[in-house]
Amino acid sequence: MTSYEQLLNELRSTALLGSCSSVLGWDEQTYMPPGGAEHRAAQLSLLAGMVHERATSPLLGELIVAAEQENPSSDPDAPTTATLREARRNYDRSTKIPRRLVEELSRVCTLSQQAWGEARKQSSFAHFLPWLEQVVALRREEADAVGYGDGVPYDALLDEFEPGMTAEEVSGLFAGLRDELVPLIAEIVETGRQPDISILERRYPIEQQRKFSLDAAQQIGFDFNNGRLDEAPHPFCSGFGPGDTRLTTRYDEHHFPGAFFGTLHEAGHGIYDQGLDPAAFGTPLGSYVSLGIHESQSRLWENFVGRSRAFWRRYFPAAQQAFPESLQDVTEETFYACVNDVRPSFIRVEADEATYNLHILLRFELEQPLVTGELSPSDVPSAWNEKFTQYFGMTPPDDAQGCLQDIHWSGGGIGYFPTYSLGNMYAAQFFEAARRDLGDLDAQFSKGEFAPLKNWLNEQIHRPGQRYRANRLVQVVTGEELSYQPLMKHLRDKYSELYGL
Amino acid sequence: MTSYEQLLNELRSTALLGSCSSVLGWDEQTYMPPGGAEHRAAQLSLLAGMVHERATSPLLGELIVAAEQENPSSDPDAPTTATLREARRNYDRSTKIPRRLVEELSRVCTLSQQAWGEARKQSSFAHFLPWLEQVVALRREEADAVGYGDGVPYDALLDEFEPGMTAEEVSGLFAGLRDELVPLIAEIVETGRQPDISILERRYPIEQQRKFSLDAAQQIGFDFNNGRLDEAPHPFCSGFGPGDTRLTTRYDEHHFPGAFFGTLHEAGHGIYDQGLDPAAFGTPLGSYVSLGIHESQSRLWENFVGRSRAFWRRYFPAAQQAFPESLQDVTEETFYACVNDVRPSFIRVEADEATYNLHILLRFELEQPLVTGELSPSDVPSAWNEKFTQYFGMTPPDDAQGCLQDIHWSGGGIGYFPTYSLGNMYAAQFFEAARRDLGDLDAQFSKGEFAPLKNWLNEQIHRPGQRYRANRLVQVVTGEELSYQPLMKHLRDKYSELYGL
Repeated sequence: MTSYEQLLNELRSTALLGSCSSVLGWDEQTYMPPGGAEHRAAQLSLLAGMVHERATSPLLGELIVAAEQENPSSDPDAPTTATLREARRNYDRSTKIPRRLVEELSRVCTLSQQAWGEARKQSSFAHFLPWLEQVVALRREEADAVGYGDGVPYDALLDEFEPGMTAEEVSGLFAGLRDELVPLIAEIVETGRQPDISILERRYPIEQQRKFSLDAAQQIGFDFNNGRLDEAPHPFCSGFGPGDTRLTTRYDEHHFPGAFFGTLHEAGHGIYDQGLDPAAFGTPLGSYVSLGIHESQSRLWENFVGRSRAFWRRYFPAAQQAFPESLQDVTEETFYACVNDVRPSFIRVEADEATYNLHILLRFELEQPLVTGELSPSDVPSAWNEKFTQYFGMTPPDDAQGCLQDIHWSGGGIGYFPTYSLGNMYAAQFFEAARRDLGDLDAQFSKGEFAPLKNWLNEQIHRPGQRYRANRLVQVVTGEELSYQPLMKHLRDKYSELYGL
Repeated sequence: MTSYEQLLNELRSTALLGSCSSVLGWDEQTYMPPGGAEHRAAQLSLLAGMVHERATSPLLGELIVAAEQENPSSDPDAPTTATLREARRNYDRSTKIPRRLVEELSRVCTLSQQAWGEARKQSSFAHFLPWLEQVVALRREEADAVGYGDGVPYDALLDEFEPGMTAEEVSGLFAGLRDELVPLIAEIVETGRQPDISILERRYPIEQQRKFSLDAAQQIGFDFNNGRLDEAPHPFCSGFGPGDTRLTTRYDEHHFPGAFFGTLHEAGHGIYDQGLDPAAFGTPLGSYVSLGIHESQSRLWENFVGRSRAFWRRYFPAAQQAFPESLQDVTEETFYACVNDVRPSFIRVEADEATYNLHILLRFELEQPLVTGELSPSDVPSAWNEKFTQYFGMTPPDDAQGCLQDIHWSGGGIGYFPTYSLGNMYAAQFFEAARRDLGDLDAQFSKGEFAPLKNWLNEQIHRPGQRYRANRLVQVVTGEELSYQPLMKHLRDKYSELYGL
């Protein structure tokens, strides 16, 4: 066996072990009885330690060096080059972080998430503050350990979620988006048009929601022979490996969009996982590119497909059949307007396709000074409220609806939020390219034909795995650099028509 | 830390890793989509290899030696002595089996189980024969590797499931049982009394069965804060560790006893797992004694409680309420007779409390010559049918209803079957002791009071873990050696009353 082959085997085994954690994590969120929490934490901690040990072992380091020597890089886009590039990146990143820091972060983040849960329930930022301080300090320490070249410490954190992306690039993209999005939202609000969204709060029996959502996930191409849909309090998608991808959602009898668009969203993630090359499982060529690219796949199916006029042309009659008592007196046009209602709101996860990005901008603008120390954790609530008022023209009534609403920071996920809006941008740009390659997508959707789009995504985005970093993938697939403009064009076109701008 | 403490930590970590496999195994049987099978097999094989490596590591061997030197044994019943005894036993057994054989057994048994499934479906013994030959040969090789002192090779296999028990002891017990049970069954059959068991095949809506079974499991003392009940094609109980025990069952709308008694049975296993000392998890004092003792707990709740007159005095009105369309015209007496109908039948898992043991005797009598080579695998069908006719007075119409009905042999489980009837004997003897200690159990059951029995079992059987081997546990708890007589007495008393013998 060549060193390269040995390296692939080693990466596969480590990923296989890691995928056992995925099963345990999924079960924890779906079926585990309350009493199982402590034992589950011990199981997951053991597995995490074993995975970390393999991912940082000197043997792995030697294999990478030997494989690099066997394969002097030439074409930067070649599969072998990509494999070695990402193996090297992961190994270097992992070995730079001292084990003590890894363990301390794990311990503090577990406790911090518990404190956050309590703090949000009581809307008491004081309760969370000491934990936020520790998390920020530890993540800053991690950034210093990982290093950030000529950049800023935030780059080292962002790089964990969006490899190769810098704060400067994100700032440029977000600034462009902000300058066009803020006036567009203002224009929409000024029309005074507000559809009667109480229609979506009528009674939608859960069993019917389950069938309707599951059917939609299947229609767009999620393969239930190789996956499932279950319930979880915080919906997620988990790809265990080839042939097994789990979606979760949550149902509220009086809120139709939650489970439905949530399922399409997770199915988008799931279609990506199912589209990875099974033969390359556990190696870079069988792994997703970045959180931003992953999010682009969920947003694309949720928003660009699921909230399109063409989609509801096809599915509104079926929705009326599934929920006659709530939808028989509603027109397709009203329903379409309701699921695309744009309105400033306090909670990110409930925000519409347009204002959603403002929630992300705000978080990104707070995270950077938090990491440098320019913003003290104790000043987060006032800074949040000030920025919120600036962006949304209203002030959160309490911290539960303000800076305490998201779990991310409590779990150490500083640098994670930007990937959500990057996902929207990637999605828009990919969708433009798909439209160019596949012709009239709307005509296809209104006939319930999603296979051409799904197959295109499989081929263009999923199958290459990490062959290209995100920015290169965008170039390869769309012929252009990543830009905020396709997203703005999508929003402007959609809402101009809908709100008569 | 003393070597003894280090040893406990090592055992705990290995068990913790093993318990991750339990989660994956449970998911495989309950929720895993079909496409996930191959990846799951790879995950389980990796974990099994890692557990085996730890369980046979020289480090563990050294820790055991050092801990033994630290604790010169004196009282054979002392907790420390027991811990070292069982740690030594497991280590010696594991290290005696060469890794090559472990891997070969694992590989062959996986394929053999698949072949068995196909063979049973087609009722084609020829399809299974080559696999049975391999399994028998490998298990015989294992017996030779493990060794069997002055005994017979079968002892080494039985010892895996029922530590310390020998074929000779089992033969003695089974001979005594056979000599009294066969005439008792003949007497019952000769009465010609056959209740109209088609009552149990009426319509029992699955949702109602689920509620009714779950409620019963809860009533007898299974704790659903620390466990669950799900569906699986082949019902089982899996204790993941402290706070998390999973029961499974399967529902048939037209067969009431399957899910109901199946759930009580698995709940009995689950109550044992939930009764183990959580602080001793992964060490001998927090582990079950043997498969026979485990089975005694499931049989005790299923048969001695769940099929008792007192139980149905309490629950029959509730059953009528839950299944009015099927039970409103049925009397308690008829229902009681139906769930205790004794009748020779071909399939072990559907057999009644009395004839069940004949199914086990037959298997035990075939397994021993199979291991020595006196019975060739190719002669199994004829030997089976001959013995079956002898015991039951009828001949299986095909091998699917004969020697192909059970999965055990295909998975390597030669030596496993005796533990089922041993379980019945242990259960009867424990139940007699409980009756002696707790007074009128029937009066308690008919008021729905199961806590005294459950607490007694917790204290007497569950909490000591492996402090005593099975035979010693029976002595400690009941004051007597294990005997088939309490089981015979239970059956004779019960059926004499029911069949007017």
